[in-house]
Parts: sequence; structure tokens; C-alpha cells
Amino acid sequence: MENYDIWIDQAIDQYLETLVQSRLKSAIRYALSGTGKRLRPKLMLATIEARGFNAKDYASVALALELVHTYSLVHDDLPAMDDDALRRGQPTTHIQFDEATAILVGDALLSDAFRLISEAAQISPDKQSAMIRILAEKIGSKGMVYGQILDIASENTSGDVAQLMAINTHKTAHLLEAALMMGAIASNESNLERTEQLGRDLGLLYQIQDDLLEATSDEATAGKSFSDDRRKKPTYLTVLGLAKTQAMNDQYYASIQATLKALELEHTVLDELIQTIIHRTY
Amino acid sequence: MENYDIWIDQAIDQYLETLVQSRLKSAIRYALSGTGKRLRPKLMLATIEARGFNAKDYASVALALELVHTYSLVHDDLPAMDDDALRRGQPTTHIQFDEATAILVGDALLSDAFRLISEAAQISPDKQSAMIRILAEKIGSKGMVYGQILDIASENTSGDVAQLMAINTHKTAHLLEAALMMGAIASNESNLERTEQLGRDLGLLYQIQDDLLEATSDEATAGKSFSDDRRKKPTYLTVLGLAKTQAMNDQYYASIQATLKALELEHTVLDELIQTIIHRTY
Repeated sequence: MENYDIWIDQAIDQYLETLVQSRLKSAIRYALSGTGKRLRPKLMLATIEARGFNAKDYASVALALELVHTYSLVHDDLPAMDDDALRRGQPTTHIQFDEATAILVGDALLSDAFRLISEAAQISPDKQSAMIRILAEKIGSKGMVYGQILDIASENTSGDVAQLMAINTHKTAHLLEAALMMGAIASNESNLERTEQLGRDLGLLYQIQDDLLEATSDEATAGKSFSDDRRKKPTYLTVLGLAKTQAMNDQYYASIQATLKALELEHTVLDELIQTIIHRTY
Repeated sequence: MENYDIWIDQAIDQYLETLVQSRLKSAIRYALSGTGKRLRPKLMLATIEARGFNAKDYASVALALELVHTYSLVHDDLPAMDDDALRRGQPTTHIQFDEATAILVGDALLSDAFRLISEAAQISPDKQSAMIRILAEKIGSKGMVYGQILDIASENTSGDVAQLMAINTHKTAHLLEAALMMGAIASNESNLERTEQLGRDLGLLYQIQDDLLEATSDEATAGKSFSDDRRKKPTYLTVLGLAKTQAMNDQYYASIQATLKALELEHTVLDELIQTIIHRTY
């Protein structure tokens, strides 16, 4: 796992080398820089390593997940959306460049993510197609984008748990599901249901923890704007209060441990990565 | 060819049926409606029919091209980009809905385009992957999005022919190339260079004609805003004048005829479609 950041950096460099020198390239490079955790590519790589395959072979495909995540952040930060000024410890892309460039950076990253998977000659067309099908399903009109529509609609509502879970399932969990499922496909697993469940639980737990951390952290430490409060969006804390939010946190944690055991992934590098995510402090 | 609109309508209905009822779905339906010419899916279908294959089998994959084209229009029309109010004879998506929804409609259509290709069970994974690779390459940071960056940078410049051709190659021609090349892949063609050239010439001719038509038409007839003039972008007419623009028009027309002959596609349904495009009056 200690090499994942190096492999991802190399994959980013190789990706950037394919781009024409331009304002677009500068802005794409900028959007991909900063203090991002790169959870999604790392989850894919760790799944592959945990199953005994060569994770490094999949670095460019794993990067596709980071491109998708970055596209979603760049578009979510736009003035017409969350209107955030700080991301990954630096000004958001539309602040550093301009709004049109930020829209196009997101558009380019999204198309390029599919390019990276379809260009991965070390992967069979069967697996390429399966990975693309899952990724596209998880992030499109039935997935992440739908979550963002629900998220915007939640502004100025008091919200309830069902609504929060629908938002977080689509907006956060689906891309983590895709990361783990793409790793499982690379590892020749045919039954993806439990892997999908693991991603779902991890995504929901992640968002619960984000709400808990935002209540006890500040923007400078997190390196991003806390716009939920400003935009009056419901959070687990405003809907459930602290005690019930903690109880939900513990429930998802237990579910994740059980699934890791069922998948015989305890004490693997994937388990280790998931524990790091779960016990993060910002 | 008379059935293409029916097949595309059916493919749109089937696509919309997979979406959750929501503001997003309404806005996607809206963006796909109106008086669009659907050139890109039709070019793919006509290529397949011209080669003696069953074009109807590829309707959902051809729709992917229309989703991509529509995403690009919805984003290009945004206030931060061309700020256009009229498209396909109706208010643009961000006017009819709102800016955030329009951004998300584009994002969803782009992801869903790749979903449609990767879900086409009637196509082998080999062909799916090849089509996705071409499409992603033609529309991402090296393709259509790069063209839009060049287009924005051309505002308030006097421009020259090389700049105009770079913009139109990336912004318009590349997606036509993809449409023809995806049709060629469906038809088991292995050498795609001439097909790509046909798409390139057609795209450049199309844009020259657009400039000529805008000079002699009005927004109501065209069903879209003419923002180039308002945003002070160079056109073939402002750069070359009428006589030289007409000469370029004739040169690309001759090149297209020669390529159709070389590909043994004269007097096919594809030839017929291309003649309709070339001789359009708006």
C-alpha cells in the first residue's frame, strides 16, 4: 500500500503527457493536485493486491476513479452548485481559473476516465467492458448525478434519515462500490454482491463520519469548505442528534467488519486501508 | 433511413424508462426533445446499413452519440460559456430549469452515453471497447472539450484559418468521425483511416456551411441562438470573406465525394444522408 501514491502519481503524469499544452491541461493538472486522499483508486488497488494480483498493472484504470471523483468535486464546487472556494487545501478550480474552464475540466476528466479504462491494453475487452458498465451505472443519471440532484433539493429542508441515506448512497457510496467492484473484476471474482455491499456500507459510514468530523473540525484542517451549514442542508447530526448518529456509525462499522470476514478479506491490505479510512481524524 | 427517427425515438424512450422519476429525468427528457437533426446517430446507423448489416440492432449505441452531442450543447449554452437562450427551437435547458440542473443534465448524459454502449449485449465486448475508446478519445481533453477551450479563447480575436480549423476539427468534426468510425466497427471494418477522414471533412464542411447559413438565416428559422456574432468570435466569413469561404466549401465537398468513392459508399444510404446534410438550408 505504501506505493499506491507513487503509482497514482506516475499514472497522473502519464495521463497528463497525453494532453495538448493548453489552459485546459493546466487546469486539469491543478484540479488533480492538492491534498486529496485518493481513496477510490486506492480501494481498487488494495482489492486487487488483497486477492494476490499485481495491483500496479491497474494503476491507470484506478486513476479513472480519481478522475471521476475530481470531476464531481470540480462541478459540485461551481457557483451554481455548492459555490465553494476551498478544496484539497487550495482555491477551487473555478476560483483559480474561471467558471467555463472548471465546467470543461469536469467534462474532460469524465470522458478521459472512460478513455483510460478502454485504453488499458493489459486488461481483456471483457473486463474493460464490465468495469465501464459498472462505473457508468454508478455515476450517471441513476447514480452519483442523481445523488447531487437530491442533495440540491435537500437545501432548506429539515430532512429525514431516509432522504439523507438516499443522497449519500448515490452521491458518495456508489463510486466506492464501483472502486471495489472494479477491483473484484480485475481479481476474477464473479459474485459482486457482497463487494457492492461493502462499498455501500463504507460510503454511508464515510458520510456519517464526515458529518461528525465537520462538527469538531475546521475548514483549514479539512482543506475544504463546509458548505452544508451555510446552505442549510440537513446532516445526520441535525436530523438525528449526536447519540443516534454515533449508534448508526457503530452499526455500519459492524456491518463492514462482518462483510470483510465473509469475503475472507480480514487482515489484508484492503482491511488495513478500510481501517485507515474509518479511523481518519479529518 | 426513413425509420431512423423512429428507432432513435424508441431508444430514447427505453433509455428514459431506466431513469428514476425526478427533476433530473424531466430535464434530460427536455434536453433530448425539440427539433434536433440527430445527425450523429443517423451517420452511424447509415454506415451500418450501407455495409449490409442490421442498423436497428445498434439504435441504443447510436443514441449514445446523441446523448454526447446533447450534453455538449447543454453545457455550451450555459451562462459561463456561450450564454445562449434558444436551442432546438425551445428555451435552453438552464433557462427552462436552472443552471445547476443543466450542468447535471450534461454530466448525466455523458456518463449514460458510455453506459449505453457498455450495456449493448448484442455487441461483443471487443467492439464495445473499441467504440468506447474512439468515442472517449474524440470527445475528451484531446477532442471536443479541447475544441471548446479553443473556441472560448477565440472570443474577441480576429482569428485566422488555422485557428478556425483547429476549433472546428475538435469541436465539431471529432464527434462526426466517432459516429462514422463506430458504424465502421459495427460493420467489421478494420482500416478506419478513410472513415475518419470522411468524418473530418464532413465536420469542417458542416461548420463552413453553418457560417454561411448564419449569414443568410435568422435565429427563429435555425431554432438556436447565433452567439458567435454577439461574442465576437471569428467565423470563416469574417476571416476569409465570402468568395474564399465558398471555395473552401467546394474543396471539402470534392474531398467528401472522393472519399465516398474510395470507400465504395457512393449511392448508398450513407451517401444519401451525407448529401442531405451537405445540401441543408438551415
